[in-house]
Amino acid sequence: MKINGNFNKLQDSYLFFNIAQKTSEFLKKNPGAPIIKMGIGDVTLPLPQACVDAMKKACDEMGVKETFRGYCDYEGYEFLRQAIADYYKEYGVDVSVDEIFVSDGAKSDVGNILDIFSDENTVLIPDPVYPVYVDTNIMAGRKILYIDANESNGFTPEPDYNVKADIIYLCSPNNPTGAVYDRAGLKKWVDYANAQDAVILFDAAYEAFIEDKDLPHSIFEIEGAKTCAIEFCSFSKTAGFTGTRCGYTVIPKELVREGRKIGELWLRRQSTKYNGTAYIIQRGAEAVFTPEGRAQIKENIDYYKRNTAILSEALSAKGIQYFGGKNSPYVWLKCPNNMKSWEFFDYLLTKCYIVGTPGSGFGKNGEGFLRLTGFGSYENTLIAAERIKNTL
Amino acid sequence: MKINGNFNKLQDSYLFFNIAQKTSEFLKKNPGAPIIKMGIGDVTLPLPQACVDAMKKACDEMGVKETFRGYCDYEGYEFLRQAIADYYKEYGVDVSVDEIFVSDGAKSDVGNILDIFSDENTVLIPDPVYPVYVDTNIMAGRKILYIDANESNGFTPEPDYNVKADIIYLCSPNNPTGAVYDRAGLKKWVDYANAQDAVILFDAAYEAFIEDKDLPHSIFEIEGAKTCAIEFCSFSKTAGFTGTRCGYTVIPKELVREGRKIGELWLRRQSTKYNGTAYIIQRGAEAVFTPEGRAQIKENIDYYKRNTAILSEALSAKGIQYFGGKNSPYVWLKCPNNMKSWEFFDYLLTKCYIVGTPGSGFGKNGEGFLRLTGFGSYENTLIAAERIKNTL
Repeated sequence: MKINGNFNKLQDSYLFFNIAQKTSEFLKKNPGAPIIKMGIGDVTLPLPQACVDAMKKACDEMGVKETFRGYCDYEGYEFLRQAIADYYKEYGVDVSVDEIFVSDGAKSDVGNILDIFSDENTVLIPDPVYPVYVDTNIMAGRKILYIDANESNGFTPEPDYNVKADIIYLCSPNNPTGAVYDRAGLKKWVDYANAQDAVILFDAAYEAFIEDKDLPHSIFEIEGAKTCAIEFCSFSKTAGFTGTRCGYTVIPKELVREGRKIGELWLRRQSTKYNGTAYIIQRGAEAVFTPEGRAQIKENIDYYKRNTAILSEALSAKGIQYFGGKNSPYVWLKCPNNMKSWEFFDYLLTKCYIVGTPGSGFGKNGEGFLRLTGFGSYENTLIAAERIKNTL
Repeated sequence: MKINGNFNKLQDSYLFFNIAQKTSEFLKKNPGAPIIKMGIGDVTLPLPQACVDAMKKACDEMGVKETFRGYCDYEGYEFLRQAIADYYKEYGVDVSVDEIFVSDGAKSDVGNILDIFSDENTVLIPDPVYPVYVDTNIMAGRKILYIDANESNGFTPEPDYNVKADIIYLCSPNNPTGAVYDRAGLKKWVDYANAQDAVILFDAAYEAFIEDKDLPHSIFEIEGAKTCAIEFCSFSKTAGFTGTRCGYTVIPKELVREGRKIGELWLRRQSTKYNGTAYIIQRGAEAVFTPEGRAQIKENIDYYKRNTAILSEALSAKGIQYFGGKNSPYVWLKCPNNMKSWEFFDYLLTKCYIVGTPGSGFGKNGEGFLRLTGFGSYENTLIAAERIKNTL
């Protein structure tokens, strides 16, 4: 019996553990210090009432023989997939119901999709990065190449045709940097992927935060993407589903590699290792797309975006450079006075009682940066902004 | 870009497709024939009211800021893990909360657990079998050995010390045969696994159907199992959660291979490729263990078991040999007159208007057998039993 030896190559992430530890040590020395946590990556507003109502109705249906539902389709109920397809139409993207696969969240899909690709593929990942892209490939023993996302390319790096890769990760709006690819930027990646038969794994988990009309919500707004991209999306940040768990993956029928339709391989994977998403949850997700649901999620997203605007304005006032802050819940700031990420973390904690997330925790190019988020409360965000303005 | 070539080695299962097709062809020729579907593997009774009420309460909590829950622990909420640990105590099994991992279902876990084991391991699978055990290992390219489960060993085969295996699948009560291992039988497997450093993947999805006091509900009732077994269980058949999705996996701390605690590897896998089970669903699962929930699931399980008893009695009356039928929702009958599985399927369809599941669809040792289930309605089961008695 051998374990998967690649697990021994995984590095444990102590990022959030270290943040928690430093914060609690500070509080021990400074009891009652009015600390504000601005590093949080989780939503804080409750679920939209439309979702709550839809799920309660679905609970009742499950308690009655005539409306009870057993095993659902592996790819999700058509009522939800149709609502998702209709949403895509708003951005001019034509995806059919059988190109949409519902799941318990984008994180599961982003990890599990790798089952259908050979371990011999080379992976290209931007740095800084959401650590899951890296760890899932280390587990499979794939060769990983990194591409630098940094100040000089505005954290939206372009492809380098000298680098050969089979699987490419793109996340836009980006976690952690908040940077967003425009159409021209994404088109370069689509052309590159098509040129070398690669597949782009496009993480669109934050698309609902985009407000600029010209920025693409979906990679399928880009010509040529249907032959080279898979898109992952989630209700987590769109509708506060981080603890309710629903997402979806879009695989166009045109996406074929080695003569196999990638969507068919994914359905085979899911029908073998997954048993569908709970009916109750799918009804909650469907409600996100109703007029009431749309209005309620807009209110919540606007609330978070007001927070990022307040933080951004405070940083601007102090002449501190940042990325994101708009079209994204994240504000990715350059630590002032050439401070390192943890150095500025300490400074911000001890001087402003603000807890951020050190950028170095997301990769080498994150060094010298720090992530703040708009997911806190309005009141605390106002106080945090005042402290930044008065202290830094 | 290469796909995972092992997907090309998978055989598509046409079992249920073929059943549906033959049934609809028969109905075309015999419009209005009062067909009864007894091949169904899905539950039909609604969720217990205790679960519905608990989930509706949880929905309301998610709609209020003060009680809203975001990301949950990867391993599940402690309230549910504690309830599961308490349930194990009833069978004299001592598992601690941090040995229990909640998920969206046993099928996901049974497939995903393989991520933590090397692809070089050899797998031992009883035949006939739930096809998922086979396909998940074909996807990873593992060598698969089969062990014969048949009439002569009562479909509970014993280990053969001449066969070397690293990963062993056991399902008891068994799908599709309904056979149940007794303590002595399981002890032989535990000893065998410990002797060769193998790990048993024990599927206990049907444990709630066991009524004989002497039969083990959990492999951890067997001495020595904690150093060689992982147990998978589910609320799907216990509480009608097939469309609600919740299960759990138990990995004892004593289970160590190559110096690594298997439970830690699993948590690392889950924290990287899974984001926890929905709060609402976990509250529903917790309610299964309340006094009301326990009473309600007992009523449902008794209803299904009354059906299997009716079917068993009809078969006995006709001198047809069967396995299962007790301690299991499945009745695994030997086709009379040496008929093959599909031959008897046709006979049963055309003479009795009953749809069963041909045993050959579960592996070579299933040939000559047919599976009926107790998951239909009481009324239909009575009619089916009458037809068997009057026609066969």
